[in-house]
Amino acid sequence: MTKAVFYHAGCEVCVDAEKMILDYFDRSKVDLEVVHFGEDPSRIREAEAAGVKSVPALVVNGQTYHINYGASMEDVKNG
Amino acid sequence: MTKAVFYHAGCEVCVDAEKMILDYFDRSKVDLEVVHFGEDPSRIREAEAAGVKSVPALVVNGQTYHINYGASMEDVKNG
Repeated sequence: MTKAVFYHAGCEVCVDAEKMILDYFDRSKVDLEVVHFGEDPSRIREAEAAGVKSVPALVVNGQTYHINYGASMEDVKNG
Repeated sequence: MTKAVFYHAGCEVCVDAEKMILDYFDRSKVDLEVVHFGEDPSRIREAEAAGVKSVPALVVNGQTYHINYGASMEDVKNG
């Protein structure tokens, strides 16, 4: 099972990307965790270390995929 | 079955995103077509009409998801 983490901040672009991923990813292959920085800011450091520059972003197999553009990590950190 | 089209131009960022999508999308739910503009430039107009600004991009349910950034559509058109 591949572990994937979808990071977002509740923005409209984020919510749309989250729905697409939840709807269409093959959950028999991918263990998908959704992290909302507004609810769990302690995960910001881990995301930045993985190369997340903006949200929404999906990290899978050590690769970071930025999906459209909702907000920068600086915006996220500044609330 | 949901129809999705992944547009790319063979760039390294494109190839990596294509692999992730082919590996992890649930093909029992998504009929996924892969379009390489280098091989089929006639599809450029359709992609731009769908809102594709850069590659790689995935269009599903009328929404366009730009996944990281490989090249602009202007780069694609200029070969």
